[in-house]
Amino acid sequence: MSYKEDLKKRSDEIEEILADYAPKGDSPALLLEAMRYSLFAGGKRMRPVLLMEAVRLFDGPVMLARPLAAALEMIHTYSLIHDDLPAMDDDVLRRGKATNHVVFGEAMAILAGDGLLNCAMQIMAQNIPYENARYLEGYLRAMTEIIVAAGHEGMIGGQVLDVLSEGKGADKEALDYIHKHKTGALLTAPLRAGALLSGADEEQLAAVSAYAAAVGHSFQLVDDLLDIEGEAEKLGKSIGKDAADGKLTYPGVHGIEATRTKIVQLHQQAVKNLKMFGDKGDFLKRTADFLAERDH
Amino acid sequence: MSYKEDLKKRSDEIEEILADYAPKGDSPALLLEAMRYSLFAGGKRMRPVLLMEAVRLFDGPVMLARPLAAALEMIHTYSLIHDDLPAMDDDVLRRGKATNHVVFGEAMAILAGDGLLNCAMQIMAQNIPYENARYLEGYLRAMTEIIVAAGHEGMIGGQVLDVLSEGKGADKEALDYIHKHKTGALLTAPLRAGALLSGADEEQLAAVSAYAAAVGHSFQLVDDLLDIEGEAEKLGKSIGKDAADGKLTYPGVHGIEATRTKIVQLHQQAVKNLKMFGDKGDFLKRTADFLAERDH
Repeated sequence: MSYKEDLKKRSDEIEEILADYAPKGDSPALLLEAMRYSLFAGGKRMRPVLLMEAVRLFDGPVMLARPLAAALEMIHTYSLIHDDLPAMDDDVLRRGKATNHVVFGEAMAILAGDGLLNCAMQIMAQNIPYENARYLEGYLRAMTEIIVAAGHEGMIGGQVLDVLSEGKGADKEALDYIHKHKTGALLTAPLRAGALLSGADEEQLAAVSAYAAAVGHSFQLVDDLLDIEGEAEKLGKSIGKDAADGKLTYPGVHGIEATRTKIVQLHQQAVKNLKMFGDKGDFLKRTADFLAERDH
Repeated sequence: MSYKEDLKKRSDEIEEILADYAPKGDSPALLLEAMRYSLFAGGKRMRPVLLMEAVRLFDGPVMLARPLAAALEMIHTYSLIHDDLPAMDDDVLRRGKATNHVVFGEAMAILAGDGLLNCAMQIMAQNIPYENARYLEGYLRAMTEIIVAAGHEGMIGGQVLDVLSEGKGADKEALDYIHKHKTGALLTAPLRAGALLSGADEEQLAAVSAYAAAVGHSFQLVDDLLDIEGEAEKLGKSIGKDAADGKLTYPGVHGIEATRTKIVQLHQQAVKNLKMFGDKGDFLKRTADFLAERDH
């Protein structure tokens, strides 16, 4: 099975999980529609895929990981909806579709984003395995890991500095903070949460954390390059926006060649940290390869 | 001690709790400033005060209630920041101070709101009493109660219908949904969460729920009346905005006299449900009196 086929199978699993946990109930129909519009707009589902893989890597409880996986994708989706707002990046296209506020209006997009963040927390809380003495604490620690990664010390902190840095020119320290927090935190959390849920030991947790940090950083660098050199059609979003917006990017600060070199280094770091897992780390190895070489 | 003195003492306790749990860390300073600006903008702290009172009513674990109390106020605060945004109610004044987006700009106000919602969840998760066998499950059930009340089936659902109903004319069913969800859910949650944390029985839980539903509804009706008849200076916010915005309000749908009658009925319902608590329900009784008669 090629990597892309494997990834497709895994993202299909995530689609099923999302269908199970997607917001329902007697809420106003338009709110549910707006939340579901962005949640089911496609995407690689990389964060929940990584979580499920970490749980498998450590022979953990796959069923208990499902609500955590859904929560991760909801948090990622809400962050995209809010990032795309006119007051932020003002994007009209995302994953090849009109952005949430273009379809539903600004007020509804803000509320749909709030709703998805809250729903992520709700799903995790409503599926706490009270009766499962073996995994209860691991589940709660995984939940906490995800929440902290999404917050002001994680993703939101990164997004704020990203907004504040627009048009301010090169600042290596700010760039590093943005990458570590804005995208890094929510790519590291799935692997750490999967390990915590499964009861991995400190050494194993450190290894997947280091792998995730390298892959997450590389992911952002490739994103930055694609915004310069990619094809809008393949990406499903506008290109050249970073430069037009005066965004702080790695190629902008360090140049394109240094970015390519850094991606190779990060790939090596990622792979090195998988050694202790032997063949069981194969999917994560191929994920690092794929993310370093992707063109969308 | 007069009720106002008693409430002041209790809201001072909440200020201390908020100071303990307010967002800190190595996040961008402006994000922390924006989050804290609204969190410490004053207000009666009614939701956390009600939570702490419910815990005392049922002789529950006061220390464990502190993070839940802080979370409630953070959720309430984030909802005000987002409601005030130009795309929503477009308010410039809140509790007598410039609203968040007026001071920090729209992008930062959206992110500060997201940050406070996320921080509420984070505080609850980071303070899970893993080692406390007696109260662990109650704590988690209280946390879940708060999260659900804040979400698409609770407060956010109400806010959405409120936005959608603007300028649409009288609709009793929509009005009822809005009041029950937009303000009702997050005023009922503190009492239910306090009861759940403390291990109250079904009958007790039903009684505080019924009390809270009546008080929450009455609170909204008084708000609607104050927007028509109140003094902007006392309220610390603009008046006459509801009518100008074409908002669905109880006086707008049922008339001012019917609103006054309803407030009296709701007050009776609230008080009736406190009977089983005897003298211990005194503060809640006086709270119902106060909320029905308040002029700000």
